[in-house]
Amino acid sequence: MKRNLYLKTTPVEEALAKYMEALQQAGALQPQTEVIDVCDSLGRRTAGPVFARCCSPLFNASAMDGIAVRAADTKGADESRPKRLKLDLDYKIVDTGDPIKAPFDAVIMAEDVVEIDEETVEIRASVPGWNHVRPIGEDIAVGEMILQTGHMIRPVDIGVLLASGNLQVEVCRKPRVGILPTGTEIIKPSAMPKEGDIIDSNSGMFAAMVEEAGGVPERLDIVEDDYEKIKETVLRQLKTQDMVLINAGSSAGTEDYTVHVLREIGQVIIHGVAMKPGKPVILAIAGGKPVIGLPGYPVSAWLAFENFATPVLRALGGDTAVAAAAAVSTAVGSAAGTAARPPVSATGSRTVQAVISRRIVSSLKHREYVRVKIGKVGDKLVAAPLARGAGAAMSLVRADGFCVIPQNSEGCEAGEAVEVCLYKDLEEIENTLVSIGSHDLILDLIGDRMAAGNGGFHMSSTHVGSMGGLMALQRRETTIAPTHLLNEADGVYNTAILRQMFPEGTMALIKGVDRMQGIMVKKGNPLGIKGIEDLIRVRYVNRQRGAGTRVLLDYMLKQAGIRPEDIDGYEKEAATHMAVAALVASDEIDAGMGVQSAASAMGLDFIEVGPEEYDFAIYREDLKLPQVQAFLEILKSREFHEKLKEMGGYGWRQAGHIELI
Amino acid sequence: MKRNLYLKTTPVEEALAKYMEALQQAGALQPQTEVIDVCDSLGRRTAGPVFARCCSPLFNASAMDGIAVRAADTKGADESRPKRLKLDLDYKIVDTGDPIKAPFDAVIMAEDVVEIDEETVEIRASVPGWNHVRPIGEDIAVGEMILQTGHMIRPVDIGVLLASGNLQVEVCRKPRVGILPTGTEIIKPSAMPKEGDIIDSNSGMFAAMVEEAGGVPERLDIVEDDYEKIKETVLRQLKTQDMVLINAGSSAGTEDYTVHVLREIGQVIIHGVAMKPGKPVILAIAGGKPVIGLPGYPVSAWLAFENFATPVLRALGGDTAVAAAAAVSTAVGSAAGTAARPPVSATGSRTVQAVISRRIVSSLKHREYVRVKIGKVGDKLVAAPLARGAGAAMSLVRADGFCVIPQNSEGCEAGEAVEVCLYKDLEEIENTLVSIGSHDLILDLIGDRMAAGNGGFHMSSTHVGSMGGLMALQRRETTIAPTHLLNEADGVYNTAILRQMFPEGTMALIKGVDRMQGIMVKKGNPLGIKGIEDLIRVRYVNRQRGAGTRVLLDYMLKQAGIRPEDIDGYEKEAATHMAVAALVASDEIDAGMGVQSAASAMGLDFIEVGPEEYDFAIYREDLKLPQVQAFLEILKSREFHEKLKEMGGYGWRQAGHIELI
Repeated sequence: MKRNLYLKTTPVEEALAKYMEALQQAGALQPQTEVIDVCDSLGRRTAGPVFARCCSPLFNASAMDGIAVRAADTKGADESRPKRLKLDLDYKIVDTGDPIKAPFDAVIMAEDVVEIDEETVEIRASVPGWNHVRPIGEDIAVGEMILQTGHMIRPVDIGVLLASGNLQVEVCRKPRVGILPTGTEIIKPSAMPKEGDIIDSNSGMFAAMVEEAGGVPERLDIVEDDYEKIKETVLRQLKTQDMVLINAGSSAGTEDYTVHVLREIGQVIIHGVAMKPGKPVILAIAGGKPVIGLPGYPVSAWLAFENFATPVLRALGGDTAVAAAAAVSTAVGSAAGTAARPPVSATGSRTVQAVISRRIVSSLKHREYVRVKIGKVGDKLVAAPLARGAGAAMSLVRADGFCVIPQNSEGCEAGEAVEVCLYKDLEEIENTLVSIGSHDLILDLIGDRMAAGNGGFHMSSTHVGSMGGLMALQRRETTIAPTHLLNEADGVYNTAILRQMFPEGTMALIKGVDRMQGIMVKKGNPLGIKGIEDLIRVRYVNRQRGAGTRVLLDYMLKQAGIRPEDIDGYEKEAATHMAVAALVASDEIDAGMGVQSAASAMGLDFIEVGPEEYDFAIYREDLKLPQVQAFLEILKSREFHEKLKEMGGYGWRQAGHIELI
Repeated sequence: MKRNLYLKTTPVEEALAKYMEALQQAGALQPQTEVIDVCDSLGRRTAGPVFARCCSPLFNASAMDGIAVRAADTKGADESRPKRLKLDLDYKIVDTGDPIKAPFDAVIMAEDVVEIDEETVEIRASVPGWNHVRPIGEDIAVGEMILQTGHMIRPVDIGVLLASGNLQVEVCRKPRVGILPTGTEIIKPSAMPKEGDIIDSNSGMFAAMVEEAGGVPERLDIVEDDYEKIKETVLRQLKTQDMVLINAGSSAGTEDYTVHVLREIGQVIIHGVAMKPGKPVILAIAGGKPVIGLPGYPVSAWLAFENFATPVLRALGGDTAVAAAAAVSTAVGSAAGTAARPPVSATGSRTVQAVISRRIVSSLKHREYVRVKIGKVGDKLVAAPLARGAGAAMSLVRADGFCVIPQNSEGCEAGEAVEVCLYKDLEEIENTLVSIGSHDLILDLIGDRMAAGNGGFHMSSTHVGSMGGLMALQRRETTIAPTHLLNEADGVYNTAILRQMFPEGTMALIKGVDRMQGIMVKKGNPLGIKGIEDLIRVRYVNRQRGAGTRVLLDYMLKQAGIRPEDIDGYEKEAATHMAVAALVASDEIDAGMGVQSAASAMGLDFIEVGPEEYDFAIYREDLKLPQVQAFLEILKSREFHEKLKEMGGYGWRQAGHIELI
């Protein structure tokens, strides 16, 4: 088991500053330039100052609709001594934008002119020279500097460039970036995966990130884990690209060749950064160009790209501020600064204060980026941590931002105020109905209908089980809590627990759906499972602690006199009905409990255990919120009920009915 | 003089809401959809929910480097009772990502394994099933909804789409937009302008704005002011485009046909909006598609596009929140809401509080968008209003944001706190050296060098003349104030006025350049101008009140015994040396005072009047600011001095020297 060892991990800013400095010294940050049509220059950065080639206006122009006159002729005119002017001789009719030429040098607005006859007007005030005239060059004088070096060209700049006689402009060339996927187990997304294969989804993500950072990506063919082949490919790419990204092999596994290749053909500035996810980054220079080795796990890959590849790309595209920002961070880098800097470097993202909903434990050894879902509950923003694994790509999709746990911190406690670096509009977050609690497929369905509707509302769902949701509701971290908890005493769902956990008269229950719970088994039920008692002879997968479905299982096991430890897989947990269904469909698991709709979606057989009521707990005072109203409308809609019918296993007789608790 | 009359002007939000509602009712906001490759989908919006087609991970995978074992085999192992396992029989070596298959169902990290010999390891702790295993579907379960309807696809989404087996995705088609420039006086940017011609710079700007809003622009040929031709072109375009923009002819001039054409072929929902600039907007529906008539002045055009075309385009591109936002604004539209809404609808811009540096008078009849330059001076943000004319395109380029004067307000007083809607990064603003005062070409030069340098600094210059700058410095609205004011008593520049205006011991003077002032005349000096005394027989152009050059003229006129009213054009004002030079180069003006570099730049002759000292006033305490240090470095640099030599008329013997006052 031979493995690479990181000599050390470098703090994030220090790593970036060192790398940028090394690149600068090697001349590897110098943008290439090119002359392009102004009309193609949106988003590009100027390579040097740009000067006006003509004036705007091109001539003295009328700023009003009216008549052009000689200012001198109007001298002395007033209410008591009006002056009369003759067409062509003394005045000319002009529209806004018409040229004002000698002998005329002033304009009188149409409203201030009295028409005497077709050829005569009377004026009752004198005007100075250039009255209502836009003199030549008023807006832009020829020779004037109109754009500075390194300016990112916007639509208004294109307008001014054209108005000032610039048809072409010298800009920084878009950096060309070769994206090289490596790994014997890696396959193209279009290939049929065999066992052990991993779909190369990172290359597509990187290509989009390169585009967003202003570069031109080229996705290269996958290269297997072979030292020579990787080396050859990188060397060849360095001839045509401005930058090369290698994915992955940047870690310390037995077949991670990237760092060795880069040491041979260039210089490795940094291997290993004190961040999580994203530690196994390689920052190198080869052939006078930046070469970055990115980790394979999607979340690590994304964070490493944002923190290191994005700034390099921006600098190569002509953004002079990037190198400066990196240099500034060195100054404070090794001291307190490591904690204070924003997490993702160049996304222009925004930082807000939020209350963290769960305790986060982190190590002093690295800065940790915890993805969070943000919800506005009452007046406060609540940040709910999502899955922390580096492989949890969906956590990046679902996240509204990052909570950054500094390198010198051990984490934070539930209820603590934290800084969250948003990457979603705050407005969208404020229009989002926050749901924390039990999982059901209908949540996705309702969320989609809210997003598709023209109310501008969204729903964000976090799945922590029924009890977890009600506890979040107690802490006022969610607006609704989906729950299906049976009171064994009276056989009624959800009401007893609400009465027990919340003050009298404060709560309501939005009735949701009746849904069928049962045991999912493989198509055709090859092991002949008939009920709970058969679970002791199969490979089972459970739900997480606090999930209503697990509570139901425990209740039924107790009734059947079965001990949990007698079930193979009782300790194996999946977080959603769909995840359980996916596992039951695989070779490794035989059975799991869940709802009928999940079994149908995955083509599994389903042994009914019994119906239950899946409802939404809410504070009464929140029922009037517009996003809750939108939610209720969908619950009651025929479109939703049709969809439930299609999915199977649901009843909707009470959907949207409100029960005060 | 027949002109269109606006029946009334509608408040901005009311206009947008009415238009969006009419479009919705006409089915003209419905996005078209198409199926495209996921790798081409960056920035597009999903047409419906997207579901996972495979799981991720695709199989139970090791989350660590280590060994795969049967969890059951490890039962009972601890420090005192270690267990030994045999290769292949009891364990298998695995890297992160390797599949974990039956009979193995758990992973022990390499660090926790003691190697006994090549085929035997010892473990000292038991592990549960799925220890360090990522079960199939942990991140994404097949059938799970991964993206909702109307979601804008980001790089992470592309990664997850590929990982979940989606190679293609159904998205909203980019709306196609025909951009139709109209006007007999309008010429292509590439054409040689004749007198009275206006360069069509708007089409290029609109095309870029369409792109930014997610559309596909098509720039059409210019159509002259001809009712039938405009009508034919619009009708033809409506067959292929999703939206048509007509520029201009939207106003009330004698040849403004757009509104009449649109009334004939469709329905005009709004003509005239209570905003300035930007009033002459036409919001119409024709052929079931949105058609917008935009004003001709570039600032009006930009504002009208941002406020009306951008939201329509976003809705057509699948952004469901836009229509909702417009509808919400109706609810508050006619009441207080008209004042409170953000000025530009969809740019995601940010609002900050700033102190306005000059009084702004506005009308109750409209909402006014005043472009401002923002500077950080000390702790406060100062907003300096820029040129307010609708034709002042450079004011849009120079602006950092807008100060919005609500429709129900008459304006604001100098020193008042105002809301500014930024469209530049606050960070860039904070790194910007603010200069308000006298104009010289070297300011552009220094600004460009600051922007090009890797300190990340910028300079923003506002030209209000020497006195205006010193007064801004008194109010602490600028950091430096370029000034060239001669004390007649002792013939020394700048020091006397500083002593007079500021408390003792607080000020410093950064010495700038010696520069030659004189009279600019046409090449070859056809009128034989020799000095100030000749100005009474030519057409002159002056500088604005408070400009040092005007003070110098007044001083010399007094000495020569000439009354200002004897000079033709004394009341005609230009704001910069280059603007004066551009006018002297035209047919309408014979002479103007200014610096030699401006005359050279414009190829004019120059009659020397005398050298003067152009310096920078600053509070002593601000000398240590990093952006001031960067400024000083440039002033003293050889590169700068070389450039001065090339421009002509400058001396730099004291440049960058600091004189305490």
